[in-house]
Amino acid sequence: MQELKDTQNEPDDRNLPIDRVGVKALRFPVEIKDKANAVQGTVATVAMAVDLPHQYKGTHMSRFVEVLNAHGPQLGVRDMSAIPGELLERLDAEKAHIVIDFPFFLSKPAPETGERGLMDYQVRFEIDATREEIDFVVTVEVPVTTLCPCSKAISARGAHNQRGVVTFAVRFEKPIWIEDLVQLVESCASSELYSLLKRPDEKAVTERAYDNPVFVEDLVRDVAAKSDAQPDIRWYRVEAENFESIHNHNAYAMIEKKGGVC
Amino acid sequence: MQELKDTQNEPDDRNLPIDRVGVKALRFPVEIKDKANAVQGTVATVAMAVDLPHQYKGTHMSRFVEVLNAHGPQLGVRDMSAIPGELLERLDAEKAHIVIDFPFFLSKPAPETGERGLMDYQVRFEIDATREEIDFVVTVEVPVTTLCPCSKAISARGAHNQRGVVTFAVRFEKPIWIEDLVQLVESCASSELYSLLKRPDEKAVTERAYDNPVFVEDLVRDVAAKSDAQPDIRWYRVEAENFESIHNHNAYAMIEKKGGVC
Amino acid sequence: MQELKDTQNEPDDRNLPIDRVGVKALRFPVEIKDKANAVQGTVATVAMAVDLPHQYKGTHMSRFVEVLNAHGPQLGVRDMSAIPGELLERLDAEKAHIVIDFPFFLSKPAPETGERGLMDYQVRFEIDATREEIDFVVTVEVPVTTLCPCSKAISARGAHNQRGVVTFAVRFEKPIWIEDLVQLVESCASSELYSLLKRPDEKAVTERAYDNPVFVEDLVRDVAAKSDAQPDIRWYRVEAENFESIHNHNAYAMIEKKGGVC
Amino acid sequence: MQELKDTQNEPDDRNLPIDRVGVKALRFPVEIKDKANAVQGTVATVAMAVDLPHQYKGTHMSRFVEVLNAHGPQLGVRDMSAIPGELLERLDAEKAHIVIDFPFFLSKPAPETGERGLMDYQVRFEIDATREEIDFVVTVEVPVTTLCPCSKAISARGAHNQRGVVTFAVRFEKPIWIEDLVQLVESCASSELYSLLKRPDEKAVTERAYDNPVFVEDLVRDVAAKSDAQPDIRWYRVEAENFESIHNHNAYAMIEKKGGVC
Repeated sequence: MQELKDTQNEPDDRNLPIDRVGVKALRFPVEIKDKANAVQGTVATVAMAVDLPHQYKGTHMSRFVEVLNAHGPQLGVRDMSAIPGELLERLDAEKAHIVIDFPFFLSKPAPETGERGLMDYQVRFEIDATREEIDFVVTVEVPVTTLCPCSKAISARGAHNQRGVVTFAVRFEKPIWIEDLVQLVESCASSELYSLLKRPDEKAVTERAYDNPVFVEDLVRDVAAKSDAQPDIRWYRVEAENFESIHNHNAYAMIEKKGGVC
Repeated sequence: MQELKDTQNEPDDRNLPIDRVGVKALRFPVEIKDKANAVQGTVATVAMAVDLPHQYKGTHMSRFVEVLNAHGPQLGVRDMSAIPGELLERLDAEKAHIVIDFPFFLSKPAPETGERGLMDYQVRFEIDATREEIDFVVTVEVPVTTLCPCSKAISARGAHNQRGVVTFAVRFEKPIWIEDLVQLVESCASSELYSLLKRPDEKAVTERAYDNPVFVEDLVRDVAAKSDAQPDIRWYRVEAENFESIHNHNAYAMIEKKGGVC
Repeated sequence: MQELKDTQNEPDDRNLPIDRVGVKALRFPVEIKDKANAVQGTVATVAMAVDLPHQYKGTHMSRFVEVLNAHGPQLGVRDMSAIPGELLERLDAEKAHIVIDFPFFLSKPAPETGERGLMDYQVRFEIDATREEIDFVVTVEVPVTTLCPCSKAISARGAHNQRGVVTFAVRFEKPIWIEDLVQLVESCASSELYSLLKRPDEKAVTERAYDNPVFVEDLVRDVAAKSDAQPDIRWYRVEAENFESIHNHNAYAMIEKKGGVC
Repeated sequence: MQELKDTQNEPDDRNLPIDRVGVKALRFPVEIKDKANAVQGTVATVAMAVDLPHQYKGTHMSRFVEVLNAHGPQLGVRDMSAIPGELLERLDAEKAHIVIDFPFFLSKPAPETGERGLMDYQVRFEIDATREEIDFVVTVEVPVTTLCPCSKAISARGAHNQRGVVTFAVRFEKPIWIEDLVQLVESCASSELYSLLKRPDEKAVTERAYDNPVFVEDLVRDVAAKSDAQPDIRWYRVEAENFESIHNHNAYAMIEKKGGVC
């Protein structure tokens, strides 16, 4: 192998350090332990990058994949936490950046009949690490029902409602369950969603939504207020996007907590 | 140029004719004349293919792009109709297949205030041609409001509703305006969508939707019934998909007219 | 529950049977047993539909989800095969249509160093069933390297190459491993892909691709020829799409075997 | 109209100002004047938002669309620049945020035959404005050919290459043509892309790419170096992503200029 030239290792004289270099769009099986203590198998899309000092021509892309593979055929959450340190070591870097996206499933009972069904939520772990510090952001995308307060107030009957999605990113003091982030968001919507609803359940969620109208503005404020009241959440950014049932465009709102980043 | 080997033109002995070969995902500006006689500039994604007899190794991909370019910097609907014949000629083929997708805009007045706004609809032209015959399918994707009849019937107040999309493909006896296909679909929904609604308009569409509940099943049946009653429409396939506001999955229905293809 | 009106069950007088009605875009965890006899957990996107006779107003959407859920928290391949029959029964239908899409992982050794890495392939099971017959189509999407024969023939050095994807759908006489379909396609490309390649491996795949140039036309013909020679494959449709490195559009070819459908 | 309650205008006591509230995913026809002084019609996707003080319950979503519509059926670049100020005025806000994405077309002659074809580039205008200041970021996505220096160095023949995309965002001292940003990026790639290449052209781009191998690291460094040398560019972020022809994942690099933001 020594006869093969190592182009990446050659010196570079452009005097330009690179902020991030690595791999993207790599799919990998992962295992997540949920609050019910069960392990669920799911599939992640992974991006990994490090910085590159100005004096090197290139990074060694295969080492990123080796670091990932070293944890066996399925990546656990503990493995994910170890990867930044391993990348810094293996690639002799100062900064590592990892993004892991995956669908997460929760079994939920329907509100009246109690029939259970699986709901899926997209989750993102984003990790920035140096040898001294690690910054961890967890993001959950929670689909919800939103019913328009204005439409309800001005209409003789009915009110437009729709599916919306809340994108809730947090930094925390101590680890937080994905389930708890989902639950915090769902408690602020006109109604949460279910995969399985029988007629008594459909009646219940319809009436619950009608009784709890929220604008995207209300939704992000309520998530923000509940986050402010939760001492474990140090920072958050909450976005709500409604796939309006009366328009072909979306309504959007966002609040980001000032401070709390480091 | 003669010294450059023409690999595509070499004989092939695998004895396997190719059904379709060509280019895909090419973006190109187009001009569509609308019913109001105005010309709107929009952007298409184009796919073009021909058959290849068993004795040739390859087609000449650049000729597809030349045929497209020959019509100048913007493609009109008349140009689109000419392309299949030009491909057959230029590529010495028996069959040509062209798909052109583009967003189309309609200015609509809001139902009460009359304020105008632009709605966008995705349109597809799909053309299959031989030297003797041409088959033309026009498809419009029409976003609509659907309000659930079951939810309305069983709930003490409100009813879940959502954005849905109707995909309506037709073959016709004589050319049909995109506007008329859109209007046919919109007349079957709980409500049509608008880009601009003031409060009196929002009240009107909310109440209209509540007064006209439709399942996806009703929607495809009503579009089918109106199409059956329209002598210019020879064939249709109508699909409805609801982005359910109470689920994280979609409801779907489809009717395809038997016969009428040739 | 009896007091809640069953709107779906009401008679319908439009005299229009519905070809397909059901749910779409439902995500669900699945378990696939692979050829190495290991079970891999992955995540599927599921669509399920049945026909609806003209005399009924609507189907019962929650029953589709109940049929899915009845198989427990993770769906196996045997469960998938049972679903069509269960839908026919539970929804009192004549025809069922199920589509299940999921990523599938294969561990592959690099060609020279033998270092192993996981490759992902998108797989689709599509099942059409009546009470008498079942039609099963398996589709694999195999990403490959393609190197252009024309570019190689006319250029003094190098040849343009790129990632392409082969979409290979089959009907079979007896069950076929996904691994074997993948391997059949990969053997026809300029080179197969790997997630992990060290320098000696990169040299090997670069030279292998340069030594095996293929047009999209060659690729679909070679997959077709190998399928014709495989008695277990009764029908196939093979499509190749190259994300051309010299264009911003794609090259495309398709062969579909005539006959063999029933 | 006065009898309809203005829910949005009600007081809010949660004491939480909202960073951004508005509309997203609105499609609208736009007209861009290009360097050749021709006007091209294309289609944009628009997002518009403002801040909302803590004391108001909601914004008035329809006003965003009215501001957009006020410029007539097609939006020009001059109109785009006016929108932030109009939003601040109309919505009585302190901060406005607008994002406009559209495909932009350039006619390019093939390198040897001079045959012309249209290349498409995705462009984004992102504007942040207060009553005192305006911040304008232009981003172009430029698809390119990249040929791997390592693969070339270690292989006896050939070298893997692929389509990549460079995402180049800039802040500038004085307005810059989209064409010049595209050209700056294309001059750093192994080869630029074309929609139309005849055989002599294909030979030329194949050999040019082979003679100019670049890693993603080289590509972002060369774009950074050229930007540093261009006094009109005050800030930039350049990202390169290769759709590797030998992997099913992508290679990625990014450099962001420190400072220059305000």
